[in-house]
Amino acid sequence: MQFRPSRYFPILGWARHYKGETFVNDAVAAVIVTIMLIPQSLAYAMLAGLPPQIGLYASILPLIAYAIFGTSRTLAVGPVAILSLMTAAAAGKIAAAGSAEYIEAALILAFLSGLMLLLLGVFRLGFLANFLSHPVISGFITASGIIIAASQLKHILGISAHGHTLPTLIASIVSHLGAINIPTVIIGGSSLLFLFWARGMLKDMLVKAGLAVKPAMIIARAGPVFAVIASIVAVAAMGLDGQGVRILGSVPGSLPSLGMPDFNADVWTQLAGSAGLIALIGFVESVSVAKTLAAKRRQRIDPNQELIALGAASLSAGISSGYPVTGGLARSAVNFDAGAETPAAGAFTAAGIALATLFLTPYLFYLPQAVLAATIIVAVLSLVDFPQIVNVWRYSKTDFAAMAATIVVTLGFGVELGVTTGVALSLFLHLYNTSRPHFAIVGQVPGTHHFRNVNRHEVAISPAVVTIRIDESLYFANARFLEDLVYGIIGNRPAIRHLVLMCPAVNKIDASALESLEAINDRLNDTGVCLHLSEVKGPVMDRLKDTRFLKGLTGKVFLDQFEAMSALDHDGTQAAIDRRAPVTNPAAVPRPSSIIAGVD
Amino acid sequence: MQFRPSRYFPILGWARHYKGETFVNDAVAAVIVTIMLIPQSLAYAMLAGLPPQIGLYASILPLIAYAIFGTSRTLAVGPVAILSLMTAAAAGKIAAAGSAEYIEAALILAFLSGLMLLLLGVFRLGFLANFLSHPVISGFITASGIIIAASQLKHILGISAHGHTLPTLIASIVSHLGAINIPTVIIGGSSLLFLFWARGMLKDMLVKAGLAVKPAMIIARAGPVFAVIASIVAVAAMGLDGQGVRILGSVPGSLPSLGMPDFNADVWTQLAGSAGLIALIGFVESVSVAKTLAAKRRQRIDPNQELIALGAASLSAGISSGYPVTGGLARSAVNFDAGAETPAAGAFTAAGIALATLFLTPYLFYLPQAVLAATIIVAVLSLVDFPQIVNVWRYSKTDFAAMAATIVVTLGFGVELGVTTGVALSLFLHLYNTSRPHFAIVGQVPGTHHFRNVNRHEVAISPAVVTIRIDESLYFANARFLEDLVYGIIGNRPAIRHLVLMCPAVNKIDASALESLEAINDRLNDTGVCLHLSEVKGPVMDRLKDTRFLKGLTGKVFLDQFEAMSALDHDGTQAAIDRRAPVTNPAAVPRPSSIIAGVD
Repeated sequence: MQFRPSRYFPILGWARHYKGETFVNDAVAAVIVTIMLIPQSLAYAMLAGLPPQIGLYASILPLIAYAIFGTSRTLAVGPVAILSLMTAAAAGKIAAAGSAEYIEAALILAFLSGLMLLLLGVFRLGFLANFLSHPVISGFITASGIIIAASQLKHILGISAHGHTLPTLIASIVSHLGAINIPTVIIGGSSLLFLFWARGMLKDMLVKAGLAVKPAMIIARAGPVFAVIASIVAVAAMGLDGQGVRILGSVPGSLPSLGMPDFNADVWTQLAGSAGLIALIGFVESVSVAKTLAAKRRQRIDPNQELIALGAASLSAGISSGYPVTGGLARSAVNFDAGAETPAAGAFTAAGIALATLFLTPYLFYLPQAVLAATIIVAVLSLVDFPQIVNVWRYSKTDFAAMAATIVVTLGFGVELGVTTGVALSLFLHLYNTSRPHFAIVGQVPGTHHFRNVNRHEVAISPAVVTIRIDESLYFANARFLEDLVYGIIGNRPAIRHLVLMCPAVNKIDASALESLEAINDRLNDTGVCLHLSEVKGPVMDRLKDTRFLKGLTGKVFLDQFEAMSALDHDGTQAAIDRRAPVTNPAAVPRPSSIIAGVD
Repeated sequence: MQFRPSRYFPILGWARHYKGETFVNDAVAAVIVTIMLIPQSLAYAMLAGLPPQIGLYASILPLIAYAIFGTSRTLAVGPVAILSLMTAAAAGKIAAAGSAEYIEAALILAFLSGLMLLLLGVFRLGFLANFLSHPVISGFITASGIIIAASQLKHILGISAHGHTLPTLIASIVSHLGAINIPTVIIGGSSLLFLFWARGMLKDMLVKAGLAVKPAMIIARAGPVFAVIASIVAVAAMGLDGQGVRILGSVPGSLPSLGMPDFNADVWTQLAGSAGLIALIGFVESVSVAKTLAAKRRQRIDPNQELIALGAASLSAGISSGYPVTGGLARSAVNFDAGAETPAAGAFTAAGIALATLFLTPYLFYLPQAVLAATIIVAVLSLVDFPQIVNVWRYSKTDFAAMAATIVVTLGFGVELGVTTGVALSLFLHLYNTSRPHFAIVGQVPGTHHFRNVNRHEVAISPAVVTIRIDESLYFANARFLEDLVYGIIGNRPAIRHLVLMCPAVNKIDASALESLEAINDRLNDTGVCLHLSEVKGPVMDRLKDTRFLKGLTGKVFLDQFEAMSALDHDGTQAAIDRRAPVTNPAAVPRPSSIIAGVD
């Protein structure tokens, strides 16, 4: 493949045609996203246990990196709730929240997860993310949302509480309930009510009042901004910080300094696993958002290039005092609705956040932490998807098992063990299920060329020919199952002289299955039974062509099952039986051919 | 299911009908197997780095345990080459070969691997063995055979050498080449020549001389016994032990004492992984032998009960000073050919070995180690299967990759890493392959109801309808591939108004794939394309029935692809286009329906 620079630097593609009109649209979207992103950045940094400026820093350079490398026109990158929780869990294993080592650990996580994404992208290994099944991701997000909401309750109540799992969090909150701060509860509770109302009803009210849908949606999403402003004014005016309401305080009004995180082999090794999980979860989440938005405008995103772009974003967070970032759902939707046309909107947003860092932070001094906590709770509870749990339960018990394990382990033992358990279990269950494939003994629907399951239909079967339809590709995990199946069926039917494997659903036969087929052929031959195949697919047949198995096959390969039965049931059976010693077992005496059997 | 004692104690089944005639046949077979098993037991104990009596002890109680629990009528259990090598590798990590701790480690390995097999059997988890693919096992056995043969060269040359990998063994042998003992080389070399000749030509010669095939085969297999007797006589007569020929020496002529191996949590934990591998490899090997023999007499074996039987055998080796055992190929074949009819033959063999231990060992004093090494080399070289490597290479590059990795890692880094690498790689490659399933854009073969790949056949396609046939079950690992595939195809074909997914080879749609289908449906809807399904299988359709996906499906589910094209290409296309804004993109203007396209 030819090297096209614009493949690895999509900015070279869109920047060439950049027009004044596009600039206006991008700039308007950037202003709106910036306003929304300021409280989000502060809140998610708090969730991650990091100082507020780290959240702002994570919303500057990473956005520019994504604008250069990203393939989504409208994805808005920055700190997100789930990765903030995962960062807190991972960094919390290294050091106490808020300590210098803790902040350094967050930096290293950003750097390492960015590097991993970049390498996955360069080596085009994005398919690894496919091993995270939807139910596992969905269960993980639901459980994480619950943990995040629980972890923020302490800010709403004005108490201290610790823990990365639901039981420890609840126990910690309960043990501190005596220390509730009433002014904080009033601010936090009213913020929560306002934010739920804004999210649930404001848009419809504005639309009814005559506003167009898009601006109404954007205003409704900007609810947190109103809460922030109102609460700052209230705290400052009433001096509530003197009454125990915890506030943001002073945030350094300077831009981040650039530099590699400190290298310490021990710490990096300890964080590598967590960084890998952060990379994968961040990637899966972001790509899903980007795909949904791209499809709405019939655009495409390139998942492998997204790995590079998100890798560059997190990497640049790691060298600019940030922490792991990825594409966020709510923020990207606002960017899209606000009319962003190119990734330049992200770069403009970065500029907006930089300006806010330099000039706006003094005005945020009185911002109550309870309001930030309320914005987090409202945001993450929208991630909690109970109906999906019910859907998965109804649709597939296997998928539900993986999902339930993910939820229970995430809630009870933390995010990292939760997601790894889910992935391992879903892989195992998939392999287990395909290792016991669906099969049916089939007979002919009288008067037709169709063959159906003898247990479900009134079909004609022959006493000397048994046909097994296998509904799965044959590979090592089910090769021995096939052997056992065949011997079981033959063992119970001494009259059988021909066994036909009907293969219309066999997409692949691997070397193990081929050996099992050889063994079946040889062993059936030892007992005087011929093995035949029918309805083998073209690509499967192509590979079987020159094999020892096909050369040694005692029977034939029939294109069509009807053809197989016509050949075997009329002359084949007799011929095979005539060649053998007289049959003494009465069950083995051929009965009249083609009897009708409801059950076999 | 009703509890039937004879299911867990198959002896209750066959012992009831035990007759005098059967006894004679079993006893004759037992005598022959005993004669063959004595030198084998001594040789494999030497290979495992254990004193000779350990090999004999492993051939007494375990055989009785298998006779009680086993489902194969003719399997002969005892020490085998591969497990001896694996025992040496595992015990060698704990202590120096021959030390008391080393012998204790071998005991613990037997006990632990037996316990694991027993538990797998009780919980009916035998399918776990399915994850060892045939190419991985075959590669592992070939590589192990090479290592074993190399490890025995030192005995043939009369030198010292150490190592559990091919490079270390070769380096060690080369560095000791100066110390070669000529009498040993003469004994070892002539034994090797004799044994190869006996194995390759003796049978045919005896048959030509008028002997029946079965006795000829048994005599040929008893080659090692003749070599043992001749070499003992030669060494004793010529006093070769005084000239540097290493001999067996005195073997304690007492039966094993019974007792649990010493419990030491550290050591047991260290050995648990090795014990698991020994259990799995032993089980897979033994079951394969048992199945082959059972099929010849139209008998069946029950793999889950075999786990219990082999578990009981190894467990009883662990409490009677033995080491890990399993069913052996050559020995079982002799047992079968000698006419064994029931597992009682195994119990009689145990009695034979017990008698030999008590009364025969003094006569083995002068047995040269070089002869035992020669019997091992001849036995294991028959395990080395180069043609199979070529077969696998020809048949499947994926399987070959797993096999080659197993061989290279086993030879270069040892048996345990070799087999785990092989299993992990084969699972990964399987998942990787199904994550990128085969698919085809199909068109109608003119004048027929058949639909074929547009890239392979001259078929008619419609400008407004595209049909994708997916040749794989849809599950989490390929769900996103499907999304990318669909968007890629739609993105390049702006005229498309209908997309049909043709599903005759889709055996399963899991919850992840269902969500991807929902996302595809929604996103296609956003771009004005209807999604349809065709030829969905019964069981798959049953599960889709009540799902949100099917309720929200913008198109229809067609029983038949021809029906789908008939419906969509004539009125469907027009209807879909009429509903939309005028088409401005010239490529999107509908061309005449049903054009002939060689390539799409």
